[in-house]
Amino acid sequence: MKYIHTVQYYETDKMGITHHSNYIRWMEEARVDFLNQIGWPFDKLEALGIVSPVLTVTCDYRLPTQFAEKISISVKVKEFKGVKLFLSYEMTNADGKVVCTGITSHAFLNEQGRPIRLKQEFPDFYQCLMDLCK
Amino acid sequence: MKYIHTVQYYETDKMGITHHSNYIRWMEEARVDFLNQIGWPFDKLEALGIVSPVLTVTCDYRLPTQFAEKISISVKVKEFKGVKLFLSYEMTNADGKVVCTGITSHAFLNEQGRPIRLKQEFPDFYQCLMDLCK
Amino acid sequence: MKYIHTVQYYETDKMGITHHSNYIRWMEEARVDFLNQIGWPFDKLEALGIVSPVLTVTCDYRLPTQFAEKISISVKVKEFKGVKLFLSYEMTNADGKVVCTGITSHAFLNEQGRPIRLKQEFPDFYQCLMDLCK
Amino acid sequence: MKYIHTVQYYETDKMGITHHSNYIRWMEEARVDFLNQIGWPFDKLEALGIVSPVLTVTCDYRLPTQFAEKISISVKVKEFKGVKLFLSYEMTNADGKVVCTGITSHAFLNEQGRPIRLKQEFPDFYQCLMDLCK
Repeated sequence: MKYIHTVQYYETDKMGITHHSNYIRWMEEARVDFLNQIGWPFDKLEALGIVSPVLTVTCDYRLPTQFAEKISISVKVKEFKGVKLFLSYEMTNADGKVVCTGITSHAFLNEQGRPIRLKQEFPDFYQCLMDLCK
Repeated sequence: MKYIHTVQYYETDKMGITHHSNYIRWMEEARVDFLNQIGWPFDKLEALGIVSPVLTVTCDYRLPTQFAEKISISVKVKEFKGVKLFLSYEMTNADGKVVCTGITSHAFLNEQGRPIRLKQEFPDFYQCLMDLCK
Repeated sequence: MKYIHTVQYYETDKMGITHHSNYIRWMEEARVDFLNQIGWPFDKLEALGIVSPVLTVTCDYRLPTQFAEKISISVKVKEFKGVKLFLSYEMTNADGKVVCTGITSHAFLNEQGRPIRLKQEFPDFYQCLMDLCK
Repeated sequence: MKYIHTVQYYETDKMGITHHSNYIRWMEEARVDFLNQIGWPFDKLEALGIVSPVLTVTCDYRLPTQFAEKISISVKVKEFKGVKLFLSYEMTNADGKVVCTGITSHAFLNEQGRPIRLKQEFPDFYQCLMDLCK
Protein backbone atom coordinates (compact mmCIF):
# COMPACT_ATOMS: atom_id res chain seq x y z
CA MET A 1 0.00 0.00 0.00
CA LYS A 2 2.39 2.62 -1.24
CA TYR A 3 1.53 6.27 -1.69
CA ILE A 4 3.77 8.54 -3.74
CA HIS A 5 4.35 12.17 -2.83
CA THR A 6 6.39 14.39 -5.13
CA VAL A 7 8.29 17.05 -3.19
CA GLN A 8 6.97 20.48 -4.14
CA TYR A 9 9.06 23.62 -4.50
CA TYR A 10 6.97 25.34 -1.83
CA GLU A 11 7.83 22.51 0.58
CA THR A 12 11.55 23.32 0.53
CA ASP A 13 13.21 25.76 2.93
CA LYS A 14 16.33 27.91 2.91
CA MET A 15 18.49 24.90 3.77
CA GLY A 16 17.60 23.73 0.25
CA ILE A 17 15.76 20.65 1.49
CA THR A 18 12.20 19.72 2.44
CA HIS A 19 11.06 21.54 5.58
CA HIS A 20 10.49 19.01 8.35
CA SER A 21 6.88 20.08 9.01
CA ASN A 22 5.78 18.78 5.62
CA TYR A 23 6.42 15.13 6.50
CA ILE A 24 3.56 15.39 9.02
CA ARG A 25 1.33 16.45 6.12
CA TRP A 26 2.58 13.64 3.92
CA MET A 27 1.63 11.17 6.66
CA GLU A 28 -1.89 12.56 6.43
CA GLU A 29 -1.87 12.23 2.64
CA ALA A 30 -0.73 8.62 2.94
CA ARG A 31 -3.30 7.96 5.69
CA VAL A 32 -6.12 9.30 3.51
CA ASP A 33 -4.94 7.03 0.69
CA PHE A 34 -4.64 4.09 3.09
CA LEU A 35 -8.23 4.55 4.30
CA ASN A 36 -9.37 4.67 0.67
CA GLN A 37 -7.51 1.45 -0.06
CA ILE A 38 -8.96 -0.46 2.89
CA GLY A 39 -12.45 0.65 1.92
CA TRP A 40 -13.06 3.14 4.73
CA PRO A 41 -12.46 6.54 3.14
CA PHE A 42 -12.80 9.79 5.13
CA ASP A 43 -16.13 10.70 3.54
CA LYS A 44 -17.60 7.32 4.50
CA LEU A 45 -16.39 7.73 8.10
CA GLU A 46 -17.77 11.27 8.10
CA ALA A 47 -21.12 10.08 6.76
CA LEU A 48 -21.25 7.53 9.58
CA GLY A 49 -20.52 10.26 12.11
CA ILE A 50 -17.04 8.97 12.96
CA VAL A 51 -14.46 11.64 13.73
CA SER A 52 -10.88 10.47 14.07
CA PRO A 53 -8.57 13.16 15.43
CA VAL A 54 -4.80 12.81 15.61
CA LEU A 55 -3.76 12.27 19.23
CA THR A 56 0.00 12.04 18.85
CA VAL A 57 2.62 12.26 16.12
CA THR A 58 6.21 11.11 16.21
CA CYS A 59 8.57 11.62 13.33
CA ASP A 60 12.14 10.45 12.87
CA TYR A 61 13.98 12.29 10.09
CA ARG A 62 16.66 10.01 8.64
CA LEU A 63 17.78 11.62 5.39
CA PRO A 64 16.98 14.98 3.79
CA THR A 65 14.83 15.07 0.66
CA GLN A 66 14.96 17.52 -2.23
CA PHE A 67 12.59 19.32 -4.56
CA ALA A 68 11.04 17.02 -7.19
CA GLU A 69 12.02 13.77 -5.44
CA LYS A 70 9.37 11.10 -5.46
CA ILE A 71 8.85 9.77 -1.95
CA SER A 72 7.14 6.44 -1.47
CA ILE A 73 5.14 6.14 1.76
CA SER A 74 3.88 2.88 3.24
CA VAL A 75 1.29 2.83 6.03
CA LYS A 76 0.70 -0.02 8.44
CA VAL A 77 -1.56 -0.61 11.39
CA LYS A 78 0.97 -0.85 14.20
CA GLU A 79 -1.43 -1.47 17.07
CA PHE A 80 -5.18 -1.58 17.57
CA LYS A 81 -6.96 -3.06 20.54
CA GLY A 82 -10.33 -1.46 19.91
CA VAL A 83 -9.88 2.08 21.17
CA LYS A 84 -6.73 3.82 19.94
CA LEU A 85 -5.38 3.19 16.48
CA PHE A 86 -1.62 3.41 15.96
CA LEU A 87 -0.40 3.77 12.38
CA SER A 88 3.25 3.53 11.34
CA TYR A 89 4.74 5.16 8.26
CA GLU A 90 7.90 4.47 6.31
CA MET A 91 9.04 6.88 3.63
CA THR A 92 11.64 5.84 1.08
CA ASN A 93 13.33 7.73 -1.73
CA ALA A 94 13.92 6.52 -5.30
CA ASP A 95 17.07 4.67 -4.16
CA GLY A 96 14.97 2.71 -1.68
CA LYS A 97 16.61 4.45 1.28
CA VAL A 98 14.43 5.25 4.28
CA VAL A 99 14.23 9.04 4.60
CA CYS A 100 11.69 9.25 7.41
CA THR A 101 9.61 7.06 9.71
CA GLY A 102 6.69 8.09 11.86
CA ILE A 103 3.82 6.99 14.04
CA THR A 104 0.44 8.61 14.54
CA SER A 105 -2.24 7.63 17.03
CA HIS A 106 -5.94 8.28 16.61
CA ALA A 107 -9.14 8.15 18.60
CA PHE A 108 -12.60 7.43 17.22
CA LEU A 109 -15.19 9.91 18.42
CA ASN A 110 -18.80 10.62 17.58
CA GLU A 111 -19.87 14.08 16.54
CA GLN A 112 -20.42 15.01 20.19
CA GLY A 113 -16.77 14.22 20.85
CA ARG A 114 -17.53 11.05 22.84
CA PRO A 115 -15.44 7.91 22.25
CA ILE A 116 -17.10 5.35 19.99
CA ARG A 117 -17.01 1.66 20.90
CA LEU A 118 -16.06 0.50 17.40
CA LYS A 119 -16.55 -3.20 18.15
CA GLN A 120 -20.21 -2.66 19.06
CA GLU A 121 -21.15 0.22 16.84
CA PHE A 122 -19.09 -0.39 13.68
CA PRO A 123 -18.07 -4.05 13.81
CA ASP A 124 -17.07 -4.12 10.12
CA PHE A 125 -14.61 -1.26 10.55
CA TYR A 126 -13.40 -2.77 13.83
CA GLN A 127 -12.76 -6.12 12.17
CA CYS A 128 -11.03 -4.51 9.21
CA LEU A 129 -8.55 -2.72 11.51
CA MET A 130 -8.11 -5.84 13.64
CA ASP A 131 -7.25 -7.90 10.56
CA LEU A 132 -4.72 -5.30 9.43
CA CYS A 133 -2.71 -5.39 12.66
CA LYS A 134 -2.16 -9.10 12.61
CA MET B 1 -3.16 50.54 10.72
CA LYS B 2 0.04 48.55 10.44
CA TYR B 3 0.32 44.86 11.05
CA ILE B 4 3.73 43.25 11.58
CA HIS B 5 4.57 39.80 10.28
CA THR B 6 7.91 38.22 11.14
CA VAL B 7 9.13 35.93 8.34
CA GLN B 8 9.24 32.36 9.63
CA TYR B 9 11.88 29.79 8.72
CA TYR B 10 9.17 27.49 7.33
CA GLU B 11 8.08 30.28 4.98
CA THR B 12 11.42 30.32 3.15
CA ASP B 13 12.15 28.19 0.10
CA LYS B 14 15.26 26.77 -1.56
CA MET B 15 15.99 30.13 -3.21
CA GLY B 16 16.72 31.27 0.37
CA ILE B 17 13.88 33.79 0.39
CA THR B 18 10.22 33.85 1.37
CA HIS B 19 8.11 31.64 -0.90
CA HIS B 20 5.69 33.82 -2.86
CA SER B 21 2.58 31.94 -1.70
CA ASN B 22 3.05 33.18 1.86
CA TYR B 23 2.34 36.81 0.98
CA ILE B 24 -1.24 35.77 0.21
CA ARG B 25 -1.46 34.42 3.76
CA TRP B 26 0.06 37.58 5.21
CA MET B 27 -2.63 39.60 3.46
CA GLU B 28 -5.17 37.47 5.31
CA GLU B 29 -3.36 38.02 8.61
CA ALA B 30 -3.35 41.78 8.01
CA ARG B 31 -7.02 41.68 6.93
CA VAL B 32 -8.02 39.90 10.14
CA ASP B 33 -6.13 42.52 12.13
CA PHE B 34 -7.71 45.30 10.08
CA LEU B 35 -11.22 43.99 10.78
CA ASN B 36 -10.36 43.84 14.49
CA GLN B 37 -9.13 47.41 14.39
CA ILE B 38 -12.23 48.78 12.66
CA GLY B 39 -14.46 46.99 15.16
CA TRP B 40 -15.81 44.28 12.87
CA PRO B 41 -13.78 41.19 13.74
CA PHE B 42 -14.32 37.85 12.01
CA ASP B 43 -16.12 36.30 14.98
CA LYS B 44 -18.60 39.22 15.06
CA LEU B 45 -19.25 38.87 11.32
CA GLU B 46 -19.63 35.13 11.79
CA ALA B 47 -22.06 35.61 14.70
CA LEU B 48 -24.10 37.92 12.46
CA GLY B 49 -24.15 35.26 9.75
CA ILE B 50 -21.94 37.24 7.37
CA VAL B 51 -19.56 35.15 5.27
CA SER B 52 -16.98 37.06 3.27
CA PRO B 53 -15.11 34.88 0.77
CA VAL B 54 -12.10 36.04 -1.22
CA LEU B 55 -13.14 36.58 -4.85
CA THR B 56 -9.84 37.67 -6.36
CA VAL B 57 -6.24 38.19 -5.30
CA THR B 58 -3.52 40.09 -7.08
CA CYS B 59 0.00 40.30 -5.78
CA ASP B 60 2.97 42.25 -7.09
CA TYR B 61 6.30 41.03 -5.72
CA ARG B 62 8.76 43.92 -5.63
CA LEU B 63 11.67 42.80 -3.47
CA PRO B 64 12.52 39.45 -1.88
CA THR B 65 12.28 39.06 1.89
CA GLN B 66 14.37 36.89 4.19
CA PHE B 67 13.93 34.75 7.27
CA ALA B 68 13.40 36.80 10.47
CA GLU B 69 12.65 40.07 8.65
CA LYS B 70 9.84 42.10 10.15
CA ILE B 71 7.38 43.06 7.43
CA SER B 72 4.96 45.89 8.07
CA ILE B 73 1.63 45.56 6.28
CA SER B 74 -0.89 48.36 5.81
CA VAL B 75 -4.46 47.66 4.69
CA LYS B 76 -6.78 50.17 3.05
CA VAL B 77 -10.28 50.07 1.64
CA LYS B 78 -9.59 50.71 -2.03
CA GLU B 79 -13.15 50.59 -3.30
CA PHE B 80 -16.58 49.85 -1.87
CA LYS B 81 -19.87 50.72 -3.47
CA GLY B 82 -22.04 48.45 -1.37
CA VAL B 83 -21.49 45.04 -2.87
CA LYS B 84 -17.86 44.11 -3.48
CA LEU B 85 -15.14 45.21 -1.11
CA PHE B 86 -11.68 45.87 -2.53
CA LEU B 87 -8.81 46.01 -0.06
CA SER B 88 -5.29 47.11 -0.94
CA TYR B 89 -2.14 46.04 0.88
CA GLU B 90 1.32 47.53 1.05
CA MET B 91 4.15 45.59 2.68
CA THR B 92 7.36 47.33 3.66
CA ASN B 93 10.59 46.02 5.16
CA ALA B 94 12.58 47.54 8.03
CA ASP B 95 14.25 49.97 5.59
CA GLY B 96 10.82 51.27 4.60
CA LYS B 97 11.13 49.77 1.11
CA VAL B 98 7.99 48.34 -0.46
CA VAL B 99 8.50 44.58 -0.85
CA CYS B 100 5.01 43.66 -2.06
CA THR B 101 1.65 45.17 -2.88
CA GLY B 102 -1.63 43.42 -3.37
CA ILE B 103 -5.37 43.71 -3.77
CA THR B 104 -8.10 41.36 -2.64
CA SER B 105 -11.81 41.58 -3.39
CA HIS B 106 -14.56 40.14 -1.24
CA ALA B 107 -18.27 39.46 -1.38
CA PHE B 108 -20.65 39.45 1.58
CA LEU B 109 -22.87 36.40 1.66
CA ASN B 110 -25.31 34.96 4.15
CA GLU B 111 -24.94 31.40 5.37
CA GLN B 112 -27.01 30.17 2.42
CA GLY B 113 -24.45 31.71 0.07
CA ARG B 114 -26.76 34.50 -1.07
CA PRO B 115 -25.41 38.06 -1.43
CA ILE B 116 -26.25 40.31 1.52
CA ARG B 117 -27.44 43.88 0.91
CA LEU B 118 -25.18 45.41 3.53
CA LYS B 119 -26.77 48.86 3.35
CA GLN B 120 -30.18 47.49 4.33
CA GLU B 121 -29.23 44.60 6.54
CA PHE B 122 -26.08 45.82 8.30
CA PRO B 123 -26.10 49.62 7.91
CA ASP B 124 -23.45 50.12 10.62
CA PHE B 125 -20.97 47.86 8.87
CA TYR B 126 -21.90 49.40 5.52
CA GLN B 127 -21.28 52.90 6.84
CA CYS B 128 -18.00 51.88 8.46
CA LEU B 129 -16.68 50.56 5.13
CA MET B 130 -18.04 53.58 3.23
CA ASP B 131 -16.25 55.96 5.60
CA LEU B 132 -12.99 54.04 5.18
CA CYS B 133 -12.93 54.39 1.39
CA LYS B 134 -13.25 58.14 1.41
CA MET C 1 -1.10 19.64 -20.78
CA LYS C 2 -3.23 18.92 -17.74
CA TYR C 3 -1.92 18.54 -14.25
CA ILE C 4 -4.07 16.93 -11.55
CA HIS C 5 -4.01 18.10 -7.95
CA THR C 6 -6.01 16.22 -5.32
CA VAL C 7 -7.24 18.55 -2.57
CA GLN C 8 -5.59 17.59 0.71
CA TYR C 9 -7.25 17.67 4.12
CA TYR C 10 -4.61 20.12 5.36
CA GLU C 11 -5.53 22.48 2.51
CA THR C 12 -9.08 22.98 3.81
CA ASP C 13 -10.03 25.70 6.26
CA LYS C 14 -12.80 26.24 8.81
CA MET C 15 -15.24 27.25 6.06
CA GLY C 16 -14.97 23.58 5.04
CA ILE C 17 -13.44 24.38 1.65
CA THR C 18 -9.96 24.79 0.21
CA HIS C 19 -8.17 27.82 1.64
CA HIS C 20 -7.61 30.35 -1.14
CA SER C 21 -3.83 30.55 -0.61
CA ASN C 22 -3.38 26.98 -1.81
CA TYR C 23 -4.41 27.76 -5.38
CA ILE C 24 -1.23 29.86 -5.67
CA ARG C 25 0.73 26.74 -4.72
CA TRP C 26 -1.18 24.60 -7.19
CA MET C 27 -0.24 27.05 -9.94
CA GLU C 28 3.38 26.40 -9.01
CA GLU C 29 2.82 22.63 -9.07
CA ALA C 30 1.24 22.92 -12.51
CA ARG C 31 4.04 25.24 -13.71
CA VAL C 32 6.71 22.77 -12.60
CA ASP C 33 4.86 20.03 -14.48
CA PHE C 34 4.46 22.30 -17.53
CA LEU C 35 8.22 23.00 -17.62
CA ASN C 36 8.88 19.26 -17.40
CA GLN C 37 6.50 18.63 -20.29
CA ILE C 38 8.03 21.25 -22.58
CA GLY C 39 11.49 19.87 -21.88
CA TRP C 40 12.80 22.69 -19.70
CA PRO C 41 12.49 21.38 -16.15
CA PHE C 42 13.55 23.47 -13.12
CA ASP C 43 16.74 21.46 -12.55
CA LYS C 44 17.84 22.06 -16.17
CA LEU C 45 17.17 25.80 -15.83
CA GLU C 46 19.01 25.78 -12.53
CA ALA C 47 21.97 23.91 -14.04
CA LEU C 48 22.09 26.56 -16.80
CA GLY C 49 22.11 29.31 -14.15
CA ILE C 50 18.64 30.56 -15.04
CA VAL C 51 16.58 31.83 -12.10
CA SER C 52 12.95 32.60 -12.80
CA PRO C 53 11.22 34.42 -9.93
CA VAL C 54 7.50 35.09 -9.79
CA LEU C 55 6.87 38.79 -10.42
CA THR C 56 3.09 38.92 -10.13
CA VAL C 57 0.19 36.61 -9.38
CA THR C 58 -3.47 37.13 -10.05
CA CYS C 59 -6.10 34.63 -9.02
CA ASP C 60 -9.83 34.63 -9.69
CA TYR C 61 -11.74 32.24 -7.43
CA ARG C 62 -14.87 31.05 -9.22
CA LEU C 63 -16.19 28.08 -7.26
CA PRO C 64 -15.15 26.56 -3.95
CA THR C 65 -13.43 23.16 -3.93
CA GLN C 66 -13.60 20.45 -1.29
CA PHE C 67 -11.33 17.91 0.34
CA ALA C 68 -10.46 14.96 -1.96
CA GLU C 69 -11.65 16.67 -5.16
CA LYS C 70 -9.43 16.14 -8.16
CA ILE C 71 -8.65 19.48 -9.78
CA SER C 72 -7.37 19.54 -13.33
CA ILE C 73 -5.02 22.43 -14.12
CA SER C 74 -4.06 23.56 -17.61
CA VAL C 75 -1.15 25.94 -18.19
CA LYS C 76 -0.65 28.10 -21.26
CA VAL C 77 1.87 30.69 -22.34
CA LYS C 78 -0.27 33.81 -22.45
CA GLU C 79 2.38 36.28 -23.54
CA PHE C 80 6.11 36.25 -24.20
CA LYS C 81 8.04 38.86 -26.12
CA GLY C 82 11.49 37.86 -24.94
CA VAL C 83 11.70 39.32 -21.46
CA LYS C 84 8.70 38.66 -19.23
CA LEU C 85 6.83 35.38 -19.42
CA PHE C 86 3.10 35.41 -18.69
CA LEU C 87 1.49 32.05 -17.92
CA SER C 88 -2.26 31.51 -17.59
CA TYR C 89 -3.91 28.76 -15.57
CA GLU C 90 -7.36 27.25 -15.71
CA MET C 91 -8.51 24.88 -13.00
CA THR C 92 -11.53 22.67 -13.49
CA ASN C 93 -13.29 20.21 -11.21
CA ALA C 94 -14.51 16.72 -12.09
CA ASP C 95 -17.72 18.18 -13.59
CA GLY C 96 -15.60 20.25 -15.97
CA LYS C 97 -16.58 23.49 -14.23
CA VAL C 98 -13.95 26.18 -13.95
CA VAL C 99 -13.16 26.67 -10.25
CA CYS C 100 -10.28 29.10 -10.56
CA THR C 101 -8.24 30.97 -13.16
CA GLY C 102 -4.95 32.75 -12.68
CA ILE C 103 -2.00 34.44 -14.29
CA THR C 104 1.62 34.55 -13.19
CA SER C 105 4.44 36.58 -14.66
CA HIS C 106 8.11 35.69 -14.48
CA ALA C 107 11.49 37.20 -15.19
CA PHE C 108 14.61 35.32 -16.26
CA LEU C 109 17.66 36.27 -14.24
CA ASN C 110 21.20 34.96 -13.96
CA GLU C 111 22.61 33.95 -10.60
CA GLN C 112 23.76 37.53 -10.01
CA GLY C 113 20.15 38.68 -10.35
CA ARG C 114 20.71 40.38 -13.72
CA PRO C 115 18.14 39.94 -16.52
CA ILE C 116 19.12 37.33 -19.10
CA ARG C 117 18.62 38.06 -22.81
CA LEU C 118 17.08 34.69 -23.57
CA LYS C 119 17.14 35.16 -27.36
CA GLN C 120 20.93 35.57 -27.37
CA GLU C 121 21.95 33.38 -24.47
CA PHE C 122 19.43 30.52 -24.58
CA PRO C 123 17.94 30.61 -28.11
CA ASP C 124 16.47 27.10 -27.79
CA PHE C 125 14.51 28.00 -24.67
CA TYR C 126 13.53 31.33 -26.22
CA GLN C 127 12.21 29.62 -29.34
CA CYS C 128 10.35 27.01 -27.30
CA LEU C 129 8.48 29.72 -25.37
CA MET C 130 7.87 31.74 -28.56
CA ASP C 131 6.34 28.71 -30.26
CA LEU C 132 4.07 28.10 -27.27
CA CYS C 133 2.49 31.56 -27.33
CA LYS C 134 1.45 31.37 -30.95
CA MET D 1 10.52 32.34 28.07
CA LYS D 2 7.07 32.43 26.56
CA TYR D 3 6.34 32.90 22.89
CA ILE D 4 2.85 33.83 21.71
CA HIS D 5 1.37 32.47 18.50
CA THR D 6 -2.02 33.70 17.32
CA VAL D 7 -3.90 31.00 15.41
CA GLN D 8 -4.34 32.10 11.80
CA TYR D 9 -7.41 31.45 9.68
CA TYR D 10 -5.27 29.59 7.14
CA GLU D 11 -4.11 27.25 9.92
CA THR D 12 -7.62 25.92 10.52
CA ASP D 13 -9.05 22.90 8.71
CA LYS D 14 -12.50 21.61 7.84
CA MET D 15 -12.97 20.27 11.37
CA GLY D 16 -13.05 23.96 12.34
CA ILE D 17 -9.92 23.70 14.48
CA THR D 18 -6.19 24.17 13.98
CA HIS D 19 -4.72 21.53 11.67
CA HIS D 20 -2.32 19.34 13.64
CA SER D 21 0.63 19.96 11.30
CA ASN D 22 0.83 23.61 12.34
CA TYR D 23 1.91 22.83 15.89
CA ILE D 24 5.18 21.50 14.45
CA ARG D 25 5.67 24.91 12.84
CA TRP D 26 4.81 26.73 16.06
CA MET D 27 7.51 24.71 17.84
CA GLU D 28 9.95 26.08 15.27
CA GLU D 29 8.68 29.63 15.83
CA ALA D 30 9.11 29.21 19.58
CA ARG D 31 12.56 27.64 19.09
CA VAL D 32 13.71 30.58 16.96
CA ASP D 33 12.48 32.95 19.67
CA PHE D 34 14.16 30.83 22.36
CA LEU D 35 17.52 30.97 20.55
CA ASN D 36 17.14 34.75 20.26
CA GLN D 37 16.42 35.00 23.97
CA ILE D 38 19.43 32.94 25.04
CA GLY D 39 21.69 35.00 22.80
CA TRP D 40 22.34 32.40 20.10
CA PRO D 41 20.03 33.40 17.25
CA PHE D 42 19.88 31.43 13.99
CA ASP D 43 21.83 34.03 12.02
CA LYS D 44 24.67 33.92 14.57
CA LEU D 45 24.78 30.11 14.40
CA GLU D 46 24.70 30.34 10.61
CA ALA D 47 27.51 32.90 10.57
CA LEU D 48 29.57 30.51 12.74
CA GLY D 49 28.88 27.68 10.28
CA ILE D 50 26.67 25.75 12.71
CA VAL D 51 23.76 23.90 11.10
CA SER D 52 21.22 22.38 13.46
CA PRO D 53 18.76 20.07 11.72
CA VAL D 54 15.70 18.58 13.40
CA LEU D 55 16.31 14.87 14.04
CA THR D 56 13.02 13.90 15.65
CA VAL D 57 9.71 15.48 16.57
CA THR D 58 7.06 14.19 18.93
CA CYS D 59 3.82 15.99 19.49
CA ASP D 60 0.99 15.20 21.93
CA TYR D 61 -2.25 16.97 21.04
CA ARG D 62 -4.27 17.54 24.22
CA LEU D 63 -6.99 20.03 23.34
CA PRO D 64 -8.09 21.56 20.05
CA THR D 65 -7.40 25.23 19.38
CA GLN D 66 -9.46 27.68 17.35
CA PHE D 67 -8.92 30.56 14.95
CA ALA D 68 -7.71 33.75 16.69
CA GLU D 69 -6.74 32.02 19.95
CA LYS D 70 -3.50 33.20 21.47
CA ILE D 71 -1.30 30.22 22.29
CA SER D 72 1.54 30.66 24.74
CA ILE D 73 4.54 28.40 24.10
CA SER D 74 7.33 27.73 26.57
CA VAL D 75 10.58 26.07 25.48
CA LYS D 76 12.99 24.27 27.78
CA VAL D 77 16.23 22.38 27.31
CA LYS D 78 15.16 18.87 28.28
CA GLU D 79 18.48 17.11 27.79
CA PHE D 80 21.92 18.01 26.51
CA LYS D 81 25.07 16.00 27.07
CA GLY D 82 27.15 17.66 24.39
CA VAL D 83 25.95 16.07 21.18
CA LYS D 84 22.18 15.94 20.78
CA LEU D 85 19.98 18.73 22.08
CA PHE D 86 16.48 17.83 23.27
CA LEU D 87 14.01 20.70 23.62
CA SER D 88 10.58 20.37 25.22
CA TYR D 89 7.60 22.57 24.45
CA GLU D 90 4.42 23.29 26.35
CA MET D 91 1.60 25.17 24.70
CA THR D 92 -1.19 26.70 26.77
CA ASN D 93 -4.35 28.57 25.81
CA ALA D 94 -5.71 31.76 27.38
CA ASP D 95 -7.34 29.71 30.17
CA GLY D 96 -3.92 28.31 31.06
CA LYS D 97 -4.89 24.84 29.86
CA VAL D 98 -2.22 22.77 28.13
CA VAL D 99 -3.29 22.25 24.51
CA CYS D 100 -0.16 20.52 23.22
CA THR D 101 3.24 19.32 24.35
CA GLY D 102 6.16 18.30 22.20
CA ILE D 103 9.82 17.39 22.04
CA THR D 104 12.33 18.01 19.27
CA SER D 105 15.88 16.74 19.05
CA HIS D 106 18.68 18.41 17.13
CA ALA D 107 22.21 17.72 15.98
CA PHE D 108 24.94 20.30 15.47
CA LEU D 109 26.70 19.93 12.15
CA ASN D 110 29.24 21.96 10.23
CA GLU D 111 28.54 23.06 6.68
CA GLN D 112 29.99 19.78 5.39
CA GLY D 113 27.40 17.90 7.41
CA ARG D 114 29.91 16.58 9.95
CA PRO D 115 29.03 16.60 13.69
CA ILE D 116 30.55 19.50 15.59
CA ARG D 117 32.13 18.91 19.02
CA LEU D 118 30.46 21.91 20.63
CA LYS D 119 32.50 21.69 23.86
CA GLN D 120 35.79 22.09 21.98
CA GLU D 121 34.72 24.28 19.08
CA PHE D 122 32.03 26.53 20.59
CA PRO D 123 32.54 26.32 24.37
CA ASP D 124 30.36 29.41 25.02
CA PHE D 125 27.38 27.90 23.25
CA TYR D 126 28.08 24.54 24.88
CA GLN D 127 28.13 26.11 28.34
CA CYS D 128 24.98 28.12 27.64
CA LEU D 129 23.05 24.95 26.73
CA MET D 130 24.55 23.04 29.67
CA ASP D 131 23.45 25.76 32.09
CA LEU D 132 19.93 25.68 30.66
CA CYS D 133 19.40 21.97 31.29
CA LYS D 134 20.26 22.13 34.95
